[in-house]
Amino acid sequence: MKLAVVGATGMVGHEILNILEERFPTSLIDEFYVFASARSAGGKIIFKDREYTVEELTENSFDRGIDIALFSAGGSVSKKFAPIAAAHGCIVVDNSSAWRMEANVPLVVPEVNPEDIKSHRGIIANPNCSTIQAVVALKPLHDRYRIKRIVYSTYQAVSGAGTAGFNDLTETLMGGKPQKFAHAIAGNCLPHIDDFLDNGYTKEEMKMVNETRKILHAPELAITATTVRVPVYYGHSESVNVEFHEKFELEELVAALRNAPGVVVQDDPQNKEYPMPLKVAGRDEVYVGRIRRDESVASGVNLWVVADNIRKGAATNAVQIAELLMNQK
Amino acid sequence: MKLAVVGATGMVGHEILNILEERFPTSLIDEFYVFASARSAGGKIIFKDREYTVEELTENSFDRGIDIALFSAGGSVSKKFAPIAAAHGCIVVDNSSAWRMEANVPLVVPEVNPEDIKSHRGIIANPNCSTIQAVVALKPLHDRYRIKRIVYSTYQAVSGAGTAGFNDLTETLMGGKPQKFAHAIAGNCLPHIDDFLDNGYTKEEMKMVNETRKILHAPELAITATTVRVPVYYGHSESVNVEFHEKFELEELVAALRNAPGVVVQDDPQNKEYPMPLKVAGRDEVYVGRIRRDESVASGVNLWVVADNIRKGAATNAVQIAELLMNQK
Repeated sequence: MKLAVVGATGMVGHEILNILEERFPTSLIDEFYVFASARSAGGKIIFKDREYTVEELTENSFDRGIDIALFSAGGSVSKKFAPIAAAHGCIVVDNSSAWRMEANVPLVVPEVNPEDIKSHRGIIANPNCSTIQAVVALKPLHDRYRIKRIVYSTYQAVSGAGTAGFNDLTETLMGGKPQKFAHAIAGNCLPHIDDFLDNGYTKEEMKMVNETRKILHAPELAITATTVRVPVYYGHSESVNVEFHEKFELEELVAALRNAPGVVVQDDPQNKEYPMPLKVAGRDEVYVGRIRRDESVASGVNLWVVADNIRKGAATNAVQIAELLMNQK
Repeated sequence: MKLAVVGATGMVGHEILNILEERFPTSLIDEFYVFASARSAGGKIIFKDREYTVEELTENSFDRGIDIALFSAGGSVSKKFAPIAAAHGCIVVDNSSAWRMEANVPLVVPEVNPEDIKSHRGIIANPNCSTIQAVVALKPLHDRYRIKRIVYSTYQAVSGAGTAGFNDLTETLMGGKPQKFAHAIAGNCLPHIDDFLDNGYTKEEMKMVNETRKILHAPELAITATTVRVPVYYGHSESVNVEFHEKFELEELVAALRNAPGVVVQDDPQNKEYPMPLKVAGRDEVYVGRIRRDESVASGVNLWVVADNIRKGAATNAVQIAELLMNQK
């Protein structure tokens, strides 16, 4: 198989290389390519004990029969180059938001809707980080109790905005000025992730609404979201309030989460155990805790959901999609 | 009038002194006393250009005809000394959680339920910080549209845990160990404020549920809460999702907030203006922004509510209650 990583020098691209090294069998990779912008071209990376030269991404990059390309180079690059790659028979796993809501593009979280990849036409979209971890936790509950409504409030790490966001926290902790965010993030909370839309919501908030619906195949699901940047380097946290159509027993609900793929239930508050961003950095699972009945509705639950936004929220999920593609061949 | 501050050396007590200096007319104060534990007794404070000696709080402290005492010395001190003060004819404004849910103790936010102070029997309770700012924003909306349900998710500053909490953020930013919190707070979010109860909620979460109901005179109001500590020094932020019985026009709702006492609407996201904890430090108003219709219910709204937890969330509210008492005389 010929595998390529596009946008290999960014934060997510770098993590994709790490995760491929960790878990992708070397024997499956016949040829390996790394692409980036002209600015990064010519640099060297070490992958599985071999040195590779970063190539500039061009319209001819996919002429050599690449099977799968993992893109994490931003929306405009994906918009232009993913169709070119697909036209050459390459399957693109795209980490940008460019293709996610396109009807013919599957939006896939392997623990949730792996079957959707079958309908791809050359492009498969990786969902938004904050959506991925939420749906991994919600899927087993939706299957059992049918979700009626979700209220999301997020606590998102600066690494979700890439290296520039990461640096902004360090810089503003030292009293410097923000470069990436609209305001200092150190000692602050910014209710502002991605651009604002005419309806008053941010794009990030509407991604959570629309992508959750698409992944769960529930186009009418009632969802609202407030997304907030907090001074945390790695790990998105989410306060997820869920109302169900069906009644549930709390123990049974917890058991469903425990048995769900990709979920770790961490819920022993008396021993001060609950998910925390500082503890999930470097992990691929979605951690769920603070699981408690919401007495304000007939059938509801509150969850606290935390995951590494760069790994499961981006790089790991993309590699898992590539693995699904391999297994289908 | 004879005025006393009990617990004058803690973070809130210190701020009460500041706020009394700022806004309480010197001419109204005939005598002024500051009390603290034996450990702090003998220290000096300057108040309105005069030096006072901190006295140890004892059972005899209220023998000299003190009219109003502002307590912020923790629950056990209040439990013991507030009744003693009240028995001597002193009116206690208590900042601890000791008396808040007692049937005969008014729980007062002056912008919301000033009339409740009339029924006091010597003790008036100051609500929890996270509740105060929420009800200031919610009261004008409840009056107009009748709240059906509230989902709170909070982003609370370390100063809410006093000097020790404040120091924990500084210490863990430097790589040190936490002393006050169960885990490092720097670069982290802790879904754990105050102790855990058998129902899986924290005391802080149940304070928000029960105190909101008491202050709004809505004992059956459907409310749920998730309270979270974030690495912010000053200023609590809250994602408040509200469902109403009545329909509303968004412009009218915003106007109601603009006209509400103690509220500042800061909601111009296109110009990157929204409430942020870093900007509310030192302010007495409650800032409300990100006001947008929640399309997931028939009549709902999302709000982002931020206030200085030490000022409006504690000290300012206590001083405002004292002012109400003065005006009633």
